[in-house]
Amino acid sequence: MTDFPKRIALLGSTGSIGQQTLDVVRAFPEHFQVVALAARQNVELLTSQAREFHVPVTACFAQPPEVAQAARAALPSVLLGEEGLLEVATLPEADILVAATSGLVGLNPTLAAIRAGKTIALANKETLVMGGHLVMDEARHAGVSILPIDSEHSALWQCLRGESSADVRRLIITASGGPFRHSTPEEMRTVTVEQALAHPTWQMGSKITIDSSTLMNKALEVIEARWLFDIPYEKIEIVVQPESVIHSMVEYRDGSIKMQASLPTMHLPILYALSYPARLDTGSTGLLRELHWPEVARLHFEALDVARFPCVRLALEAAKRGDTYPSVLVGVDEEAVALFLAGKIGLLDIAALIETVLEQHQPVANPDVPAILEACAWARQRTRELYEQSYGRKVE
Amino acid sequence: MTDFPKRIALLGSTGSIGQQTLDVVRAFPEHFQVVALAARQNVELLTSQAREFHVPVTACFAQPPEVAQAARAALPSVLLGEEGLLEVATLPEADILVAATSGLVGLNPTLAAIRAGKTIALANKETLVMGGHLVMDEARHAGVSILPIDSEHSALWQCLRGESSADVRRLIITASGGPFRHSTPEEMRTVTVEQALAHPTWQMGSKITIDSSTLMNKALEVIEARWLFDIPYEKIEIVVQPESVIHSMVEYRDGSIKMQASLPTMHLPILYALSYPARLDTGSTGLLRELHWPEVARLHFEALDVARFPCVRLALEAAKRGDTYPSVLVGVDEEAVALFLAGKIGLLDIAALIETVLEQHQPVANPDVPAILEACAWARQRTRELYEQSYGRKVE
Repeated sequence: MTDFPKRIALLGSTGSIGQQTLDVVRAFPEHFQVVALAARQNVELLTSQAREFHVPVTACFAQPPEVAQAARAALPSVLLGEEGLLEVATLPEADILVAATSGLVGLNPTLAAIRAGKTIALANKETLVMGGHLVMDEARHAGVSILPIDSEHSALWQCLRGESSADVRRLIITASGGPFRHSTPEEMRTVTVEQALAHPTWQMGSKITIDSSTLMNKALEVIEARWLFDIPYEKIEIVVQPESVIHSMVEYRDGSIKMQASLPTMHLPILYALSYPARLDTGSTGLLRELHWPEVARLHFEALDVARFPCVRLALEAAKRGDTYPSVLVGVDEEAVALFLAGKIGLLDIAALIETVLEQHQPVANPDVPAILEACAWARQRTRELYEQSYGRKVE
Repeated sequence: MTDFPKRIALLGSTGSIGQQTLDVVRAFPEHFQVVALAARQNVELLTSQAREFHVPVTACFAQPPEVAQAARAALPSVLLGEEGLLEVATLPEADILVAATSGLVGLNPTLAAIRAGKTIALANKETLVMGGHLVMDEARHAGVSILPIDSEHSALWQCLRGESSADVRRLIITASGGPFRHSTPEEMRTVTVEQALAHPTWQMGSKITIDSSTLMNKALEVIEARWLFDIPYEKIEIVVQPESVIHSMVEYRDGSIKMQASLPTMHLPILYALSYPARLDTGSTGLLRELHWPEVARLHFEALDVARFPCVRLALEAAKRGDTYPSVLVGVDEEAVALFLAGKIGLLDIAALIETVLEQHQPVANPDVPAILEACAWARQRTRELYEQSYGRKVE
């Protein structure tokens, strides 16, 4: 039997996954209790979340002093800076940490929470991509579970339930294919920010939506899957499933394939991670729209055209090389996507920048957190320099 | 760890499932050992199987003395009649009984094998449809597992692996829809035997192929699922999946759906039941053709039009009534399908006969084996009488 209520510390409560995590808590008030919230800078929303869920501990980790001041004014006991983040992550009253910050900021608090024996519900991609070796090692030592919050990894995890990983022939991660699934290279060269932000099946933040349009996001998911399920890259494939109904599959060595499906929703993977190993009845909650099959009349499957999406190859090469290459990948991609979103470079320039910066990198073997963060910072700096050299303009 | 080799007693070795069971044994000679074979009347094939697999115990259970004589001539130590069947089913040297006979003959040996503590790999539909209450009761008492050999139930069983049946919202059994999926009632009235035998996705025996064309087979699978997984009829649905790639699904109460897939094959469900809980690597055996997704480009899902397939409603009504109604259902259907195959009645007459005989039945509550067999025999007799009354001809 699962012990409810589970007490949740939530990092990144004002982001997309953070808010949807609170939707799940709202739907199951007897099963989940929020004991701490941390947000970057949206003080107003953080304050209203803290009031609604009667959360005793809050943290605001943005750097600018005016945000800290605003947070102090609204929430007198608010914790500040990275220290506040670490305090939330290791709070003795919490059973489970939902790590839903975006970017690098999640790595240290996640490691601290693992050492403090918390179950980790992980929605932050960078943490595993850059520090998978550290995270999984620490989790093994601490006897802590790393539970994915992501539709693809939740699907794989559900398909693996009750099975032996020795029996896995392949993990098959599905991809919607993004908005440029059928675009020619010429069309992709002149894509606008607006077109790239128009994802066919998922509503997400702008960074991840651009990563979906270049398929970088899918490659990062392959890297995450390698760490989460301890399956080598050779056994992980991507297949395009444009309806985003089949969230991923596991093929076993006897030839049997298990798939997990639902209408596109992040509420389900969040709920599954929070309720695991129990499954809670969403029937009367209004949290999800049920999938009725004759309504979903057709599912399509297509091969991924890797030639048109070079980010996939580049990311997987970086991942296979290991060391600090994945950290560099994350750093360039963050910076390059920011340049694209600011209208300064084209969509295809993202892959070009990634390729160049990865080539120029001097790797550090088996990196610790400082080495990871340094490689990532170097990659961001190098990306800006390359942009400035090519375009003769400084990045503000 | 699973103990291999598993020692198999096989009832119905010369039928379609029996022969495919031996294909599986042939592919994994170190994992499976056949210790006994029983066949109805195909003495030649039984003899060659016994030689190939070095099987010490054989049985031939056909009634006609000339078959028994032929069997004795070819296999001097062959066991005969229902006693031989029971001896094979309860053989001390066997770990697992594969019950792959067709029709009523499987019920008694299966019950005997359960009492003897054998794991049962069950391919015989009638056993659970008529005697599900007896079989599952005896299995519980004996602490014996009833493992399905059938693509749909194997799919459900695989999707339920590691899950709690309390978390099940619905079992969704897929149906190819058969050859008359899009036929009008007028077209179905004049269907030929040849048309009904042309199944779009599965190669099977003639009785089960006709049952697939009327969707009776799917209704019988719902009844089996009710017993195998102890899930009430209200939670079992049928959806048409014409490609026969998704073999069934389980929807959990959180809204998550798990599906099991492969190209259409009976070898996989047979292997899974025999190897369970292990999964064996079919990669180099040539036993299965691997499913590669871009090759299967589309999957379709359609609602089942129950109005055009009255056998479904009739069968499920009989199942919900319980008592001896399911036994009557099995009896009428066997006889009516035989009449159709002999060209004596039309396809739609099958449902008409089922409806009439079920209406005329005087049920026996909580029937034991003799009551089940009596109800079934009465139903067959009554079906023949109705045919003779309507058509003025005696059934030979």
